[in-house]
Order: sequence, then structure tokens, then C-alpha cells
Amino acid sequence: MTTDQILISEVGPRDGLQSIQTIMPTEAKKAWITAEAKAGVKEIEVGSFVPPKLLPQLADTAEIVAHGLTIPGLTVAALVPNLKGAENAVKAGAHKITLPLSVSETHSQANLNKTHAQVFTEVANIVALLNDLDPSKRPQFEGGLSTAFGCTMEGAISEDRVVALASKMMALGCDEVGLSDTTGYANPAQLKRLVRRVKAEVGDANLSGVHLHNTRGLGLANALAALEEGITTLDSSLAGLGGCPFAPGASGNIVTEDLVFMLDSMGIATGIDLGKLLEVRKILAAALPNEPLYGFTPDSGLPKGYGSEGPWGLPKAS
Amino acid sequence: MTTDQILISEVGPRDGLQSIQTIMPTEAKKAWITAEAKAGVKEIEVGSFVPPKLLPQLADTAEIVAHGLTIPGLTVAALVPNLKGAENAVKAGAHKITLPLSVSETHSQANLNKTHAQVFTEVANIVALLNDLDPSKRPQFEGGLSTAFGCTMEGAISEDRVVALASKMMALGCDEVGLSDTTGYANPAQLKRLVRRVKAEVGDANLSGVHLHNTRGLGLANALAALEEGITTLDSSLAGLGGCPFAPGASGNIVTEDLVFMLDSMGIATGIDLGKLLEVRKILAAALPNEPLYGFTPDSGLPKGYGSEGPWGLPKAS
Repeated sequence: MTTDQILISEVGPRDGLQSIQTIMPTEAKKAWITAEAKAGVKEIEVGSFVPPKLLPQLADTAEIVAHGLTIPGLTVAALVPNLKGAENAVKAGAHKITLPLSVSETHSQANLNKTHAQVFTEVANIVALLNDLDPSKRPQFEGGLSTAFGCTMEGAISEDRVVALASKMMALGCDEVGLSDTTGYANPAQLKRLVRRVKAEVGDANLSGVHLHNTRGLGLANALAALEEGITTLDSSLAGLGGCPFAPGASGNIVTEDLVFMLDSMGIATGIDLGKLLEVRKILAAALPNEPLYGFTPDSGLPKGYGSEGPWGLPKAS
Repeated sequence: MTTDQILISEVGPRDGLQSIQTIMPTEAKKAWITAEAKAGVKEIEVGSFVPPKLLPQLADTAEIVAHGLTIPGLTVAALVPNLKGAENAVKAGAHKITLPLSVSETHSQANLNKTHAQVFTEVANIVALLNDLDPSKRPQFEGGLSTAFGCTMEGAISEDRVVALASKMMALGCDEVGLSDTTGYANPAQLKRLVRRVKAEVGDANLSGVHLHNTRGLGLANALAALEEGITTLDSSLAGLGGCPFAPGASGNIVTEDLVFMLDSMGIATGIDLGKLLEVRKILAAALPNEPLYGFTPDSGLPKGYGSEGPWGLPKAS
């Protein structure tokens, strides 16, 4: 088990908000991001550079990126589906951009309306765009392998295919790759195998993050498995915002509060103040009164005496 | 990671039913136990030998034990709070009895109205009772260390105290000890440390099981940690019956269906047919129409193609 610091990458403003009908007011998004950064969260995926017609919830992404850039020490990340999105992200000044490539080509065609070959062209064009930039303005470019653990359309996904696509994305010029359990199909054994295989293919440093969902309740078990394989960046969503369309009682993304509680109680530093993080939910509750907020730790509260010396974190001799 | 077979010990008919007001009809309990055994569950804690005044929900425990004994291959377990309960359990023919000792003495006094010294006396008297029996009729006797990971009254619990009490229970004549996260305070690092320490004290074979709650969402992550430390028996409750009084949306015990999905998808044999197990929920839904049934896997359904060859379990070369 690594005891290195773990980076929590908050994806609620992107993955959470794109999953609900309600459009969160721009000012509430800014307040959310500010408050979560103040609680110690160091990376936030603030939106997606997609056409506003497709996702009106994220139409203000450029403005939200600009807001994020005013917060000292915050890495401002954004999703980009194609070259056009990357151009807009660069214009807005995002520190990090992620292009999702669905390992399931069926899903890729249904979701992005693109074959793998077409996505590769976008990636190559984005790399060319980035290489023309002043290095000080060049965002980090991640290739996100979605449906890496299974697909609701194709079912099982070949691990060989995931490894080959990770290799291809690096060869095209991505700075790193990530693995996404878009469908909540992953299990800890599969996750460990796949992380090991992809790391062996692209190099340890080029697979730092996983994006997990909690669709079947295994989200935190998979997060633990990822930690044990040396993964250092974990995506999660405050209050599990957005839920899971297939499971009425379930969050979609793993819940940031529960993930931080797990890491914190294990003595793994995240730099996040859990008490302050729990307070940020009030902003969501006020801005999205009709959306359910998820999270076991927020519902049950922190253990008695939590945060004082005790059995959590590094054990105290008694 | 062990690939030995894992024993799932279903505790819903005891821990689940004692946590709800509704009294499940005896015939429904029998149907539940029969159906779950048919789905492949090999150990069920069917009730508790406590005074009916205290827990009227479990007043029919002797009859339920008798029913369980008619099911070939099923280990019939019951909780006993004291010598009187053990006598009744022996009379009924239970294969296994568990006496809970709360590591938190404050909790022990509030819950069982007994100091540790008074519980030790009960344990010694039970051992004497068992030693007088024909060995063929002697049930397995487990000392269950509850509140082992923290207490809602005392807060942090000293790991030294857990280890010392495990040792004491073995010295008094228990056949084995178990660790219970009664309060849902455990985290994977703490669980691994404590399992290692208790095994070092009492011997690997004498700590085979843990009893986990999902109060803060870490239940399956803790189960994974337990597996990695060689724990081979995991308690869980079908549909997370009984819920958690502190967290309206949360199951109390970890949910049997989600636990079996995790193990099954990892390729760890439990002998349980997940499809049949999911069907057993119908008995609960019919008998307890006003009780919420929990579980991520039941809500979201099994992955597409699940159970055919795929990425689950042992990977298929592709």
C-alpha cells in the first residue's frame, strides 16, 4: 500500500452536471469550485467543451475555466471531444484536457458518432495544435479510455484491446492515459490486472489515474485496488451528483466525501479537510434543490472523536 | 489475493430482522432460508436466543433453527448473549453459536448490561456446558468481538485491547474469534492491521471471519482488505435488511448480493448462484412490504453478458 499523497480529481462540475437536466447557475458553479478548492481539492474538471446544443448544462465552461484560473494552486481540467473542443479549451486556458476514447467502438459510434480511426485523427490534430503552442501555455493532454472495464452495448471488453489503445494514444502524442469504468462494471481483480498491463505497456508514470463509478457498489473497493497498484489520481464527484440512470438509489461517480473519508481514515494524505468538504454540499443543495445528493459518510456523520488521536490513520500506541 | 473458496455467512434473519420493528412471519423466514440455501449459501445465522420480550422479532428462533436443520449441508448459526441462550441453542441443535463481547465496555454495559468480567463468566459457563456434551452434538463456539473498530459511545478503540480480548476469549475456551465492525467505523488499513495482530495472537486458523457494516460506504473495500489478509468467512445480509439507523439511505450490514457480485466477478468461488440469490429478494419484498431493500447490484442489474466468458473472473485470452 502506497502512502504517497493521493490526488483527488473532482469531476462533479463536468460528469455530475452533464448527467442531470437542471442547469446549475454559473455563479453557483463558481461558488462550488471556490469552496471545494478552499477545502483542499487541488484538481477540478470544471466542464466540457462540447456544443451548447448537446450539453446546455455546460455551455458556460469557458467562463468557469476562467474562474478556476483565479484560484491559486488549482489545476483546472476540462473534457474535449475533438479538435474544436481542444481549441476552445486552449483559448480558455485550461491546465489539463482529457479526450475520451471509448474502447468499445460500438459505444464510440453511439456516443461520439466516431469510429476509432476518426478519434485517432482528432487526437493527432490536437497534438499538432498543442505542439505549436508556447510550452508555458501547453495544457497536459490525457487520453481517457472509457468503457475500459465493460460496455453496456458490447458487454465484455477485451483487455488486449484496452492495452493496445492505451499504447496507440501514447504513440499519437498524449501525455498520459487514464482508465474509466464508465459503466460500473469493474471489479478489483480486473482493475489490478488491467492497471498492471497498461502500466507495463505505456510506463508507470503514464497511467496515473482511474475514473470509477459506483453502479454496483464496488466503487471504493476498486479505488482501494487502484491504490494498491500505485494509482495516484482518483476521480470522484461531490455528493455523487448526477446519480446513475440505471440504479435509482446509486450515485454515478464514486462520492468524493466517501473517498476522502476512506483515504483520510487510512492515514493517506489528500490535503483535503473533510469537515470543510462536507460543508460544500450546502452549495449543491441550495442550487439544485430537486437533485438527490448521495454519500454514506455525509448521511451517517463522522465517527465519534474522529480527527483526534485514535485508531484512524497511523495507529497510536496504547 | 487468496483464491480459496470464501464462505458467505448470511446474517439477515438475525441482524437484519432484529433491526426492524416489523415481525417477519415464521413461514416467510423459513421460505427465505430455504431459498437462500438453494441459491448456494452454506451458513445462515437464523436468529438469536434472547428473551422474546427484548426481541419479539426473533421469538421463533428455536423453530427456525429446527427448520434450518432440515436443509442438507446448511450450517445453522445463532447468536447467544449468555449461558441461558447457549442452553437454548444447544437444545435447538444449532451447529454454531456466537457470543458477542463488546470491546467497548461502555457499549457492553449499555447493550448487554454486563461488564467484561461478567461476560467472561458467561463464556466460561458456556464452555463448561459444551464440554459436557457428546462431541457430536457440540456446536462450534465463536467469540464475536463487537465494536472492534470503534464505538459510538467511546469513539476510538485501542487495538491492544482488541488483541487482549481475543486472547482472553480463546483462553476461556472459545473455538474461534471474529471481528465485528458494529458501528461502520472500520477502514481497510485499520482492518488489515487488526486482522494481522489478532491472527498473530490467536493463530491464523482461529480468526476466520469478519462482520462488516456499510455505514460509511466502505463495507466492500473493507471486505476486499479482509480477503487480502486471508479472511475466509464474510458476514452479510440479504438486501442489507434492517438498514442503518444513522444513515437513512444506507444498509446496515454489507449487502449479500453486492458482496457475491464482487467475489463472483473477481473469480473467487462462493458456491452461490447470483441469479438465484437475487430472486430470493422477492420473498423479503412480499413479507416485509414496508421495509426498504438495499443493494446496488439488484438495482442496476448484472452487466451485459455477465456469466458468459468475458473479463470477469479468470480472463479469457483474446
